[in-house]
Amino acid sequence: MQLISVCEYLLVRLAELGISDIIGVPGDFNLGIVEKIEHDDRFRFISECNELNASYAADGYARTHGISTLITTYGPGELSAVNGIAGAYAERVPVLKITGGIALSKIAKKLPLHHTLLNGKYDQSLKIYEQITCAQGLITFDNPGEQIDRLINACIRHKQPVYMQIPQDLALHMIPAPTAKIKLNVNEPLTDSEAKIVDLIHQKLLNAKNPIIIVGDLIDRYNLGQEIETFLAIRGIPFVLSWAVKGLIREELANYGGVYAGEFSVHQVREFVESSDCIISLGMFNCEINLGEFSANLPQDKLIDIQLDSAAYNNESFTITNFTSVITAITELQINRRFNEITHNPNYQTSANLPANTILHDHIIDEAGKFLAENDTLILETGTISFTAGYYKVPAKVKVISSVNWYSIGYALAATSGVALAKKTGRTLLITGDGSLQMSVQAISTMLRYDLKPVILILNNEGYTIERAFLGENSSYNDVQIWNYTSLADSFGGNAYTRIVTNATELEQVLNQAKQQTDKMWLIEVKMGKYEYPSALLKLAELVVKQRESQGK
Amino acid sequence: MQLISVCEYLLVRLAELGISDIIGVPGDFNLGIVEKIEHDDRFRFISECNELNASYAADGYARTHGISTLITTYGPGELSAVNGIAGAYAERVPVLKITGGIALSKIAKKLPLHHTLLNGKYDQSLKIYEQITCAQGLITFDNPGEQIDRLINACIRHKQPVYMQIPQDLALHMIPAPTAKIKLNVNEPLTDSEAKIVDLIHQKLLNAKNPIIIVGDLIDRYNLGQEIETFLAIRGIPFVLSWAVKGLIREELANYGGVYAGEFSVHQVREFVESSDCIISLGMFNCEINLGEFSANLPQDKLIDIQLDSAAYNNESFTITNFTSVITAITELQINRRFNEITHNPNYQTSANLPANTILHDHIIDEAGKFLAENDTLILETGTISFTAGYYKVPAKVKVISSVNWYSIGYALAATSGVALAKKTGRTLLITGDGSLQMSVQAISTMLRYDLKPVILILNNEGYTIERAFLGENSSYNDVQIWNYTSLADSFGGNAYTRIVTNATELEQVLNQAKQQTDKMWLIEVKMGKYEYPSALLKLAELVVKQRESQGK
Ligand SMILES: Cc1ncc(C[n+]2csc(CCOP(=O)(O)OP(=O)(O)O)c2C)c(N)n1
Ligand SMILES: Cc1ncc(C[n+]2csc(CCOP(=O)(O)OP(=O)(O)O)c2C)c(N)n1
Repeated sequence: MQLISVCEYLLVRLAELGISDIIGVPGDFNLGIVEKIEHDDRFRFISECNELNASYAADGYARTHGISTLITTYGPGELSAVNGIAGAYAERVPVLKITGGIALSKIAKKLPLHHTLLNGKYDQSLKIYEQITCAQGLITFDNPGEQIDRLINACIRHKQPVYMQIPQDLALHMIPAPTAKIKLNVNEPLTDSEAKIVDLIHQKLLNAKNPIIIVGDLIDRYNLGQEIETFLAIRGIPFVLSWAVKGLIREELANYGGVYAGEFSVHQVREFVESSDCIISLGMFNCEINLGEFSANLPQDKLIDIQLDSAAYNNESFTITNFTSVITAITELQINRRFNEITHNPNYQTSANLPANTILHDHIIDEAGKFLAENDTLILETGTISFTAGYYKVPAKVKVISSVNWYSIGYALAATSGVALAKKTGRTLLITGDGSLQMSVQAISTMLRYDLKPVILILNNEGYTIERAFLGENSSYNDVQIWNYTSLADSFGGNAYTRIVTNATELEQVLNQAKQQTDKMWLIEVKMGKYEYPSALLKLAELVVKQRESQGK
Repeated sequence: MQLISVCEYLLVRLAELGISDIIGVPGDFNLGIVEKIEHDDRFRFISECNELNASYAADGYARTHGISTLITTYGPGELSAVNGIAGAYAERVPVLKITGGIALSKIAKKLPLHHTLLNGKYDQSLKIYEQITCAQGLITFDNPGEQIDRLINACIRHKQPVYMQIPQDLALHMIPAPTAKIKLNVNEPLTDSEAKIVDLIHQKLLNAKNPIIIVGDLIDRYNLGQEIETFLAIRGIPFVLSWAVKGLIREELANYGGVYAGEFSVHQVREFVESSDCIISLGMFNCEINLGEFSANLPQDKLIDIQLDSAAYNNESFTITNFTSVITAITELQINRRFNEITHNPNYQTSANLPANTILHDHIIDEAGKFLAENDTLILETGTISFTAGYYKVPAKVKVISSVNWYSIGYALAATSGVALAKKTGRTLLITGDGSLQMSVQAISTMLRYDLKPVILILNNEGYTIERAFLGENSSYNDVQIWNYTSLADSFGGNAYTRIVTNATELEQVLNQAKQQTDKMWLIEVKMGKYEYPSALLKLAELVVKQRESQGK
C-alpha cells in the first residue's frame, strides 16, 4: 500500500480535476500546504492580494474550468472569503474552499492562539461556512482520504462550494494513496419520477402547438450546453436563453428566439415566450432578475420547470435525483416534427440614432458586440452594466459571465483574474463600474503579476449610478472618489495599454486597437453620464414603483 | 407620545453615544437609512470603498471614540464585513453592525430576491453573525425601540460587536421616541464574590513583598486608563503594561516597569515581573502574543488574574459581574506603603551601533518614537512590525493601536481611516507592511476623500517577510507585486506628500518634515531588507521551534 501525505492526497485529487492554478493567500496555518504546491510542477499557487478577491477569482476560475480551489489561512483569511463563497453557493459555482487550520493537538489543549476569537471555541468558521456551503468538514485522523473525497464529491454533485479545514498536524500525516479516481457526475438510469417528467416533455414536444425551451443557468453549471445545443440544432425546437447564460447556445441557430427575462426581454421575445402553449424551462434560476423583477408570466399550466432536485408542472411535482441524467435523457428524445419558425427578431436593437458625442449603454452593447470573437469571455459587473447582460450579440462559443442574483460588486474584476487564468484560448473582456472596481481594485495588480491580459472597460460615471435610479440621485453616499484609473497599472508596478474615451468613436477605435494588440492588459476608462441608465434598469425602476404602489405604500 | 421612525430612533441613540461619523457602504436595502443620515446634520456618512475596509474602519473608530457604527447592505455587503467584525469580537471592540435588510413582508412571501442565497432561507446572516457578535437581532414590529436598546446595551456592556438587521419596511415605521437616555456602563455595588477578590488584592498590595500590577487590554477597552493611571501615580505601586496597550499609562511615572509579554519583554522587565511574589493582572488578554508565545511564567499561586467575567487566584475562581465596578473599587483602595523602587531600565534599547546605510526595525522604533507627540496615535499592522509594538518610547496620551490576537492583515490601513475620523487632536502615524497594505489599499482613497491626513510608513520588504521567518524563505507565495507606493495618492485622485527612503538619515529627515507639514497625508515608502526580522520575531521563531521539538516533531 502506497502511503502519501494528506496534503499530497488532496493534490492528487486536484490534478485529476484538471486544476492547475490554486488560488489563495498564504498564512501561517496553511504554509505547509502552500509550500507543497510551490514545489509541485502540476500546480501554480496564485496569490491574490486579499482573500475576498481570491474567493471571487476562484468563482471565475470555476465558472470557466468547471471547478476551482481556494486556499486561505484560518480565521481572518477564511472569514474574508465568506462573501465570495456565499455568492458561489447562491449561483452554484463549485469551489473547494480549503482552510489551513489549527493543529488538532493544539485545539485539544484549548490554546488561546492568534487568529482565534479568544472565547474558547474553535469551530466558528465551520459553523459560518455551514450557512454558505453544501458540505463542510474538519479533517481528522479518522480516514482523511475518505473525508476529502466526500467533500469533493459534494462539490461536484451540487456545484456549490464545500468547506474543508485541514489542521496543521494533518497536512503531512501519511495515509494510503487513492486507489481509484474521484467519481465525476455520471449519468444514471432514470428513476420512475424522472422518467415520468421526461416522458411528459416528450409528449409535449410532440403534441404542443408551439412549444419552446428556455435554456437556463444550470445547463451552464452542469456543463450541458454542448449537448443541449446539438439537440436543439438537430430537432429545431424554438428556444430562448435565460438572462445570464447569453452565449451558451449558438445564436446563429435558426430556432434561436432571444433572451427571456420577463419585462427585461425585448418586447417581441417576451410575446413569443409568453404566447407559447408549452414552455419547458431547463434549469433556469427562478430569481428576481431572470424573472424580470417578477414580471415574467409563465403560468403553471404551460410551464414545465426542471430544477436541480425537482420538476414541476401544473401543480404536480417530480423528484429529480440526477439532473444530468434527466437533461441527457431529454436530449436523446426522438422528436421528428416541424416547429414554428422564428418570425421575430430575437436580438436587442440598440437605438437607431445614437448620439456620437457621448457614450451610452447602447454604444457599449454595440461596440462590445463587435469586439467579441469566438472563444472570448465577456464579464459584466453588477451595476448599470448588468442590466445590459441579455442584450449583447455574441459569436458562437462566447461565454458571458455575470452574477445573476448574488449581485456583489467588486466581484467581476477579481473574478476576471480567475477567468483569465483558466481560459485556454480567447480574450477576456470585462465591463465594470467605477464603484465596483474600487471595491476590489488590487485584482489589477494580481493580473499584472501573473501576466494576464484582459481588456477592462471602467465605466466612470462618478459613482453608484444604479443606486441613483432608486434613491439619493444627488446624495453624497452615491458618489465615489474620482480616480485616475488609467494610472493604476503603473502604480501597481505593471504595464498596460491605457486610454480614456469620451465618445462612441473613440470607444470603437480603442476596442479595434485592443483587438489587434494582445500583448498587454488594456485599461480603458469610459466616461459616461452620471445618470445614464440602461433601458432594462429603467424598466426595473418602473416595476419597483408599481410593486410599491400595489402594496399601498 | 412623540412618534418617530425606527431609523430616527436609532439615530437618537447614536447621537447620545457621541457618534458623528457613521461608517459603511450604501446598497439598495439600506438606502432608506443612509438617505436619512445624509440629511441629518448630526452625522456624516463615511463611504468606505468596500465593506471589509469599512469594518476595519469601524473598529479603529471604536478603539478611539469608544463605540462605532457600521452600516452595510444585506447579503454581499454584510458578509464582506465578517472578518472585520470577528476581529472586533475577539479583541473586544464595540461596533454596532447594522444591516439594511429585506422587508419582512417580502421574507414572508419567500421571494427569491437578489442578494439571497436562493435556498429559501433568509436568516443565514443572523446565524453567521451569531458566531462573531455578542448579541444579534432581526428588528421586528414588536417594540423595535426596545430591541434596538437591547442590542446597544449589549455592545456597551460586553465591548463587543452586535448585529442588528433593520428590514426595509421597518426603517420608516413609526414608534414612540425614547423617553430616557441609553444606560452606559455604571458602577454597581460589588457582589460578594467581587468584594472578596478586591479584598484579596487589598491584602496583597498591603502585605506582599514586591507586588506589581499588569495593566491589560480590558483597561483600555473599558476606558479605565485614566482611573488606573491616577491610582498608580498616587499609590506608587510598580506596574507594567501588557504588550498591546503601550501608552495607556504615562511611562514617565517612576513606578513604570516596562512592557511585559514573557520572552518578548526586555530581559530585565521579564525578570522584574516574574520575580514578584504577587502579580495582579488587570484585564490582560491571556493570549499567545501577550504571553510571549506562551513563555510567560506567571504561576497560579502568585498571580491574581482579573478577567471580564471572572477572577482567579491559586485555584480559586471568583465571578465578576461588573468589571468596571471591580476596577473602580481597586482604584479606591487605601494603600499607604512604600513599594520597591524600579531599579531596572523599563525601556527597550535599540542596538547601540545601528548601521546608517540601511533601515532596520530598530531605526523605525527610534524614529517613530521621536516623531510621536502627546495625543498622537500610533497604529501598527500585523507583520514584522507588530513584533515591535511593545518597544516604542511614547509620550503621555499616545495611544498605540495594534491587533494583539486576531492578526488580520489589511486591518491597520483601513482602521487608520476610522481612527483619524474619530480623533479630535493629534496626529495618526501608521506603520504597515507592503503585503498588508495591498490587502486594503483603497482605504487610502477613502482617507483622501474625507481629507484625513495620517502619516503612513509603508515597509517595502518585497513581500510577506514575517512568513519567510517560518517557511518558504524564498518561495514565490511570500512575494508580492512590487508597487509604486508613492504614486497611489495620485492614482486615487488625491494629494499627499510622498517620499521613498532607504536609510536611517532619510527616515529621520522625512519624519521631521512630516512633523512640520501637517496639511496633507504623508505616504512614505520605507525600503527594507527582505529578511529583516525584528528581535521579538526571532524570539518567536525560536520558541516555535522549541515547541515543535518538545512535541517530538
Ligand atoms: C459588496 C456589495 N456592496 C454593496 C452593494 C450595493 N450596490 C449595488 S450596485 C452598487 C453600485 C455600483 O456602482 P458602479 O460599479 O459604479 O456601477 P454603476 O451603477 O455606476 O454603473 C452598489 C453600491 C453590492 N451589491 N455589493
Ligand atoms: C487576512 C489575513 N490573511 C493572511 C494572513 C497571514 N499573514 C500574516 S502576516 C502576513 C504577511 C504580512 O506581510 P507584510 O504586511 O508585507 O509585512 P512584513 O511581515 O513583510 O513586514 C500574512 C500573509 C493574515 N494574518 N490575515
